[in-house]
Amino acid sequence: MPTPTRRAIAAAARRIAPHVRRTPLLRLPEGLPGAAGALILKLELLQATGSFKPRGAFNRLLAAGTLPAAGVIAASGGNHGAAVAYAARALDMPAEIFIPELTGAAKRARIEGYGARLVVGGAAYDEARAASEARAAETGALMVHAYDQAEVLEGQGTIGRELERDAPELSHLLVATGGGGLIGGIAAWYAGTPVSVISVEPESCPTLATALRAGRPVPAPVGGLAADSLGARQVGALMFAVAREHVAAAVLVPDAAIRAAQRLLWEECRLVAEPGGATALAALVSGAWVPPPGARVGVVVCGGNCDPGSVLG
Amino acid sequence: MPTPTRRAIAAAARRIAPHVRRTPLLRLPEGLPGAAGALILKLELLQATGSFKPRGAFNRLLAAGTLPAAGVIAASGGNHGAAVAYAARALDMPAEIFIPELTGAAKRARIEGYGARLVVGGAAYDEARAASEARAAETGALMVHAYDQAEVLEGQGTIGRELERDAPELSHLLVATGGGGLIGGIAAWYAGTPVSVISVEPESCPTLATALRAGRPVPAPVGGLAADSLGARQVGALMFAVAREHVAAAVLVPDAAIRAAQRLLWEECRLVAEPGGATALAALVSGAWVPPPGARVGVVVCGGNCDPGSVLG
Repeated sequence: MPTPTRRAIAAAARRIAPHVRRTPLLRLPEGLPGAAGALILKLELLQATGSFKPRGAFNRLLAAGTLPAAGVIAASGGNHGAAVAYAARALDMPAEIFIPELTGAAKRARIEGYGARLVVGGAAYDEARAASEARAAETGALMVHAYDQAEVLEGQGTIGRELERDAPELSHLLVATGGGGLIGGIAAWYAGTPVSVISVEPESCPTLATALRAGRPVPAPVGGLAADSLGARQVGALMFAVAREHVAAAVLVPDAAIRAAQRLLWEECRLVAEPGGATALAALVSGAWVPPPGARVGVVVCGGNCDPGSVLG
Repeated sequence: MPTPTRRAIAAAARRIAPHVRRTPLLRLPEGLPGAAGALILKLELLQATGSFKPRGAFNRLLAAGTLPAAGVIAASGGNHGAAVAYAARALDMPAEIFIPELTGAAKRARIEGYGARLVVGGAAYDEARAASEARAAETGALMVHAYDQAEVLEGQGTIGRELERDAPELSHLLVATGGGGLIGGIAAWYAGTPVSVISVEPESCPTLATALRAGRPVPAPVGGLAADSLGARQVGALMFAVAREHVAAAVLVPDAAIRAAQRLLWEECRLVAEPGGATALAALVSGAWVPPPGARVGVVVCGGNCDPGSVLG
């Protein structure tokens, strides 16, 4: 499985530049209480739609060249669904987003607010996914996978490219893993550089740690606080090929550390991160990963789609 | 009254650099719904303590040279009190913060959390202020005024210096006014440049608009949504001397526009701004100020000290 190349990621960056925000860094020379040492936060929670997902979605749509009249299709009641709906609207094409029944009213309203047609595709995500694939076969719409497509990885990898330019001093970068599109793209960008990319997952959704132990993507448990954004059943095949070569460590954090990281981001930085968005920082808060002496540590804060009051919960 | 010079503001920037965050910009090439045209947000709500106030507080303390054994003193139950407490702790000196009785438990806890001694100085702010001055006369502690001291203006002016470096293309900058330390410092930085600095105030706390009409600082009504951070009784004498020369316009916004700006910052950017922090943007949302064709507009989002859930209220 070929690793996305720097060249492909740079092409993605040029393609999506008119449509996504170049998110800023927050430099914390003083570190954070309980996470000693200087930190650099990549504020990807300030991205359009509140998560990193539009990067991959736009790249998939723009790289496809001529798009089918039926438009685009995706399965997700969460950040990916919102991002595909947003990208389709920006590019003036129809979108159908298949969601499971359990998707809440607020998320449905957000996806519909971007002009997409919502289809309830079954009780759980797997059924919505199957229904979306059947529909795509029928209409010819372009499927945008949540993580396991080359164009999606390349789009998410543009975060690595921005970080390298804006924070060339980084030695270590913490990134949350669900299906693995985000860390797969970023690790591909940093492949062959001295920067160590470290995966952080909830103990309750250990997709990459489980896959690395098994030597291949295998199903893992899905549950806990961050399941709505990191609860993929297993990592993608594309990201796994990158991760086994270019991810330096895969650490696990308890839900309590994710909650503590959310609270810390609010108390010290006035940032509202959703549980999946605070998971990377939770590795420092919990001590699950301890920076080596002299490390210059970056953290991708990758999403903020939650009830803002919940960060104090 | 001499305008703070660029030289003095640059000296302040060097002085405070080890202690404050260089806050990032969020560039929105697509603008925001209801506020058309590209925007650049200065994310000063991500500053330590959740507002711009530590810039002035640190500059006042560090410019004083040898500090009295009695430490520092300030009157404020809000952002200024928290910032002085924070700065005193960082510089390892005692602080007394005089607050009015109406200061809520959360704000008291924050100031005490920074290690300051809290003193309830009377029923309202004016009494707390008088009590703090009496106490300073007795102990010899260094008074840090919330806005009307040269060092405080110079500290807040460092935001202008950062903006000029990070966003040299700006033509117009919207800044909220309460006592006027923030806009006074920033307008002093931009004095003699082509950048127009525009004051935005709630209709219910019109300190600068009232002073400009009167030709001098005079008391104005205090009330409404943003009174906790913009509710100074009148602008400072130092800022007024700057404002009459170097503030291009003083516009007023209704509370409903402030509320709408808070909601917009959350919905579109996942930023939690307190009412005073969203007031500058409210000028665009309400149409109280309309950018001229070709304007390149910046907005200082100057504070985030509120209940995060309140931005949806």
